[in-house]
Amino acid sequence: MTTARFASLTPLLAPRSVAILGASSDPTRIGGRPIATMLKRGFAGRIMPVNPNRSEIQGLPAYASLADLPERPDVAVVAVSPTQAVAAMAELGAMGVKAVIMFTAGFTEIDPTGVGPESQAQDEMLATAQAHGMRLLGPNCLGVFNDHIGFYATFSASMEAGFPPKGRIGIASQSGAFGSHLFSVARNRGIGTPLMVTTGNEADVTIGDVIGWMAEDPETDVIATYAEGIRHADSLLEALAAARAARKPVVMMKVGRSVIGRSAARSHTASLTGDDAVTDAVLAEFGVVRARSTDELVDIAVMATRRIYPVGNTLGVITLSGGAGVLISDVAEQLDFPLPPMPERAQAMLKGLVPFCAPRNPVDCTAQVFNDTTLIGRFTESMVAEGGYSSVLGFFTQAGGAKSMAAKMRQELRAVRERHPDRLYVMSVIADAEVTREYEQDGFLVMEDPTRAVVALHAMGRFGEAFAASPPSAPPIVPSVALPDATPNEAEAKRLLAEAGIAVVPEAACGDVEQAVEAARGFGFPVVMKILSPDILHKSEIGGVLVGVRDEAGVREGFATLMARAPEGARVDGVLVARQVSGVECILGIARDPVFGPVAAFGLGGIFVEILQDVVVRRCPFGVLEAEAMIRSIKGAPLLLGARGRQAVDIAALATMLARLSVFAHQAGPRLAAIDLNPVFATPTGAFAADAVLEIVNAD
Amino acid sequence: MTTARFASLTPLLAPRSVAILGASSDPTRIGGRPIATMLKRGFAGRIMPVNPNRSEIQGLPAYASLADLPERPDVAVVAVSPTQAVAAMAELGAMGVKAVIMFTAGFTEIDPTGVGPESQAQDEMLATAQAHGMRLLGPNCLGVFNDHIGFYATFSASMEAGFPPKGRIGIASQSGAFGSHLFSVARNRGIGTPLMVTTGNEADVTIGDVIGWMAEDPETDVIATYAEGIRHADSLLEALAAARAARKPVVMMKVGRSVIGRSAARSHTASLTGDDAVTDAVLAEFGVVRARSTDELVDIAVMATRRIYPVGNTLGVITLSGGAGVLISDVAEQLDFPLPPMPERAQAMLKGLVPFCAPRNPVDCTAQVFNDTTLIGRFTESMVAEGGYSSVLGFFTQAGGAKSMAAKMRQELRAVRERHPDRLYVMSVIADAEVTREYEQDGFLVMEDPTRAVVALHAMGRFGEAFAASPPSAPPIVPSVALPDATPNEAEAKRLLAEAGIAVVPEAACGDVEQAVEAARGFGFPVVMKILSPDILHKSEIGGVLVGVRDEAGVREGFATLMARAPEGARVDGVLVARQVSGVECILGIARDPVFGPVAAFGLGGIFVEILQDVVVRRCPFGVLEAEAMIRSIKGAPLLLGARGRQAVDIAALATMLARLSVFAHQAGPRLAAIDLNPVFATPTGAFAADAVLEIVNAD
Repeated sequence: MTTARFASLTPLLAPRSVAILGASSDPTRIGGRPIATMLKRGFAGRIMPVNPNRSEIQGLPAYASLADLPERPDVAVVAVSPTQAVAAMAELGAMGVKAVIMFTAGFTEIDPTGVGPESQAQDEMLATAQAHGMRLLGPNCLGVFNDHIGFYATFSASMEAGFPPKGRIGIASQSGAFGSHLFSVARNRGIGTPLMVTTGNEADVTIGDVIGWMAEDPETDVIATYAEGIRHADSLLEALAAARAARKPVVMMKVGRSVIGRSAARSHTASLTGDDAVTDAVLAEFGVVRARSTDELVDIAVMATRRIYPVGNTLGVITLSGGAGVLISDVAEQLDFPLPPMPERAQAMLKGLVPFCAPRNPVDCTAQVFNDTTLIGRFTESMVAEGGYSSVLGFFTQAGGAKSMAAKMRQELRAVRERHPDRLYVMSVIADAEVTREYEQDGFLVMEDPTRAVVALHAMGRFGEAFAASPPSAPPIVPSVALPDATPNEAEAKRLLAEAGIAVVPEAACGDVEQAVEAARGFGFPVVMKILSPDILHKSEIGGVLVGVRDEAGVREGFATLMARAPEGARVDGVLVARQVSGVECILGIARDPVFGPVAAFGLGGIFVEILQDVVVRRCPFGVLEAEAMIRSIKGAPLLLGARGRQAVDIAALATMLARLSVFAHQAGPRLAAIDLNPVFATPTGAFAADAVLEIVNAD
Repeated sequence: MTTARFASLTPLLAPRSVAILGASSDPTRIGGRPIATMLKRGFAGRIMPVNPNRSEIQGLPAYASLADLPERPDVAVVAVSPTQAVAAMAELGAMGVKAVIMFTAGFTEIDPTGVGPESQAQDEMLATAQAHGMRLLGPNCLGVFNDHIGFYATFSASMEAGFPPKGRIGIASQSGAFGSHLFSVARNRGIGTPLMVTTGNEADVTIGDVIGWMAEDPETDVIATYAEGIRHADSLLEALAAARAARKPVVMMKVGRSVIGRSAARSHTASLTGDDAVTDAVLAEFGVVRARSTDELVDIAVMATRRIYPVGNTLGVITLSGGAGVLISDVAEQLDFPLPPMPERAQAMLKGLVPFCAPRNPVDCTAQVFNDTTLIGRFTESMVAEGGYSSVLGFFTQAGGAKSMAAKMRQELRAVRERHPDRLYVMSVIADAEVTREYEQDGFLVMEDPTRAVVALHAMGRFGEAFAASPPSAPPIVPSVALPDATPNEAEAKRLLAEAGIAVVPEAACGDVEQAVEAARGFGFPVVMKILSPDILHKSEIGGVLVGVRDEAGVREGFATLMARAPEGARVDGVLVARQVSGVECILGIARDPVFGPVAAFGLGGIFVEILQDVVVRRCPFGVLEAEAMIRSIKGAPLLLGARGRQAVDIAALATMLARLSVFAHQAGPRLAAIDLNPVFATPTGAFAADAVLEIVNAD
């Protein structure tokens, strides 16, 4: 199953012919290296060097210009000056070439203004590509390799130290340097990454597109990726959905942080999220595992090629020495990776085998193993069959790596694995290359550092959960609301939200003091009074909110006070009188992420959000189940769930409000800049917004 | 400078002669391996095998019994049955042998009750050792090696794969398996750990003793240690102080968590700390860096052998490619490791050299370096001389590892290092063993993974800060207070604390309702009323606290209510009436750690402590400066410091209260089980304890 969006990358990544603009006879130069490397690796297709000054390059016939080519290439590699590159794009488009890999630099990456001539040149190339249905990789990229067909359209020198071994990991990296680094680290560990794509400036082709192509590529099982920023939401979301549907794990190193964008940053909630938090939430939504280091990225990718992704992952640890398991338990606990105990009956059986063993988990079969290696097999069999662990980590350190011992242990362990091939088995041993290879031939992963082993095993379970997850719940149906032309006052904002089914505290907008007195009488005292003005977004900062107003005299006095506190020149529409509700204060908000559009945020009120940054975000829209999961995920959630004798609030009402808000924001379109419901009172009998700011981008 | 405490380990770790009880002719057996290994490595001293059945073992004369030995050995290795081991201890003690290394297992480690015959046997051996001034390593330990003198009193098989290279790292590990693992990992990386001590059951010699000996050992510069639990506070504290004074970094992997101890766990505060938090605080106090994995432990230890420990550590990053620095910046930011920008003038100079370079930091000198390698030298020189970075990380990946490139880069970088030898230089390159060795010969550390490089560089600054730190401030002088025989009521607890200069909310203990009315009138309304009983520790849980009592009628009604709420059988001394103070609610507490004695805890009130576990702990006593640092370290500290327009509280008063409390607890001795001041109101004009529980261990 392929989609048009991602299939359009096939000429880039698996072409049958390639032209090299700026081809060089020098195999170390940027225009010479791809030719030399493809010749060395035996590219199956035709290589057509283009160079006005030579008739032959590296033993191949060279062509003076694109017009002289004997056939239309599937892809053109461009390694000429920026000016020539722009011209070449037009020529390639006119010829009907479908893909361009552009090494040439000197575009947006050297123009901090974003509007200088360099950026304009890049925009022009993109426009040319789009006009001709041509995909453009780069500019300023290190290119591509696809070792399956010997295609090496890259000037990376990293192949000098060796080509990738066979394997099923694809690398998608914005940064060429990091992509090469990753490839080199993997190759030196004997790990195959036959496909590498670097996207550089991403004028057209993004990391998302590449992930999508790999999700559909039958030669790729695991996608390892590096990104500094996400440029297009649609392709990334579609790609991650495709990868998940194909049960292909994506492990990503996402680096770099920046402000969420000028418009969104104006809103209170947005200032607390930042786009990295949004990206993080999106990646989590699709089961992408974020790696924190190169080692972790490689470890997880390699383990994932086993294609065992447990659901309800549990860890069983077996050692030859009691203490060793403690370290592993600590790491697992920190990751919330369960280490359930062995069943009582199995524990008794193991005690029967070795009286001083520790049979619980971590299981210590003690140094008795040196006298009787069959114990390793019997203990491990019991852990797998009776303990039911999906992940088994043997911490055997140098004993397990010693040649004589390793041979006997392998024999025992291999039999267990053959009976239970659906589990993950990792040997934490210190072994030379030969012993390591022998373990790996028997289907065991060898990882010297037990901490790294636990982290990678845990990631397999996260993939498993993502692949097994039910589809997200349907977002609630919310009536469409017409946004006003400009930011409305609080009463109007609440009216719009109420139309969308978002409960607000009972209240009335009052134009004069008599209306206010009457409204207060209707609600019953005490009441809250707030100044009503479209020009005042944060009322409490000017003293525009009075709480605990106890009687009619208080209402009259309060009305006068609020009028007096209005800043010079602010439009004042009167006063809002509301029933005074109490409950756990929450904040629900919407900010607009420049990439992912409206994003909902949830946190507890006041200090929780402001100081502790205990906030969760998710892109809109989403359903009630997802909203409830968000609410339960914050650190302060016990406050809502009834900690220490408190009464639990109505989580369902709060989740419904959050889900409805997400749909409201999604439907409202890009003119909705932000929503800030602060506070929302979560009570045992419902959730009510007590204040609402709805920020609109002016229509002009 | 040596101390008696640690010098007593010299016969264990650097003996001139050794007897082996249970010596074996088989070099793979527990009693044979030490002899075989020492013979192979050429132990300088005399080896005396003891075995009743043989006259010669592995080519050495063997002795039938201890009585037959030709001289008194400095140390005896015991590898016999548990029963024989107990007897041997008595015999060795009587002979005046000063040190025993006991491999024999079957003592406390197999007795979960702690009082069974196995534990009794171990206690007996300890008593024998103490009676004769003999140090006992183990039992159930893997032994010791000291490669400087070829002393290998260990049955670890890990030397089969090679002896340690020369080096200056000592390993102190409770776990024999982990110690061997660490040694093997280090050796395989070419790192020298000539000294390894494993402590096993720690009947006598603890990790602290070993750290102390290494702190005084002229052959050791860096101490790498692994501990599951700390058994004796005194030796550890003295050892860590000695290591810090000798500017020897200690890097520790401390694993395992357990409850803080039965008595302390009864107290509210203790339940939130746990002994791992206490250990963590003690380690931090002495500048010990805790490693989270074996890799990290080895990385930090190796880098520390350079003996460059910057104060005010800053990181300068240089790359050949823009993107690569982002990953490093992320890691550094997460560690709070500053990456200050280059000075403007230096940036302009670098821009002059390479127009499209990124001169800020991370500094990207671009692929121009491939055309002109002198750029590496000029850029790095500018970073060191003008940027002033104490740590320099070059992320050069496979380019920096390529043979041709590496030679040219080394030449440039070596010149910089020779001019500025006081900085730390790390090359993140992918290089083979030869290129790596060449870099290292020039004084550069090679670390493939940049994340690991940043973590290790950061640790060097933490050592630097610890070595440069001023001595702790003197704890305040607090009058000694005589503890009552049993847990006092609240009023009495407060009186005791007030004697120690700990401010409490103005209040009066009232035996009847008329006294209560009078007291309330004196304080002015509103007041707080609390039930007064030594039997009720947590009053609010039974509704025993009334706040906001507004008038005399309220006092009368409240008195009756509180009397009615007292549980059946509780002694009730009346009611406490207090002025109602408001401020930021804090909790100050004391718990008793079974190892480190009284420990003070500080946190913000209510949810902060209970749900967010935002608590800081420190062993008692300490001064006001340390108390203030604790207060400022919690996540919620901005609430005290005047966040978002709030008024700042009187931090000095709060710190003084915390420091005084720590001295009070220290002076009170072991009968003080716990103190719980909850809440303490921190106000802009002082801090006042509004409730106090002082838990005493009954004198009987």
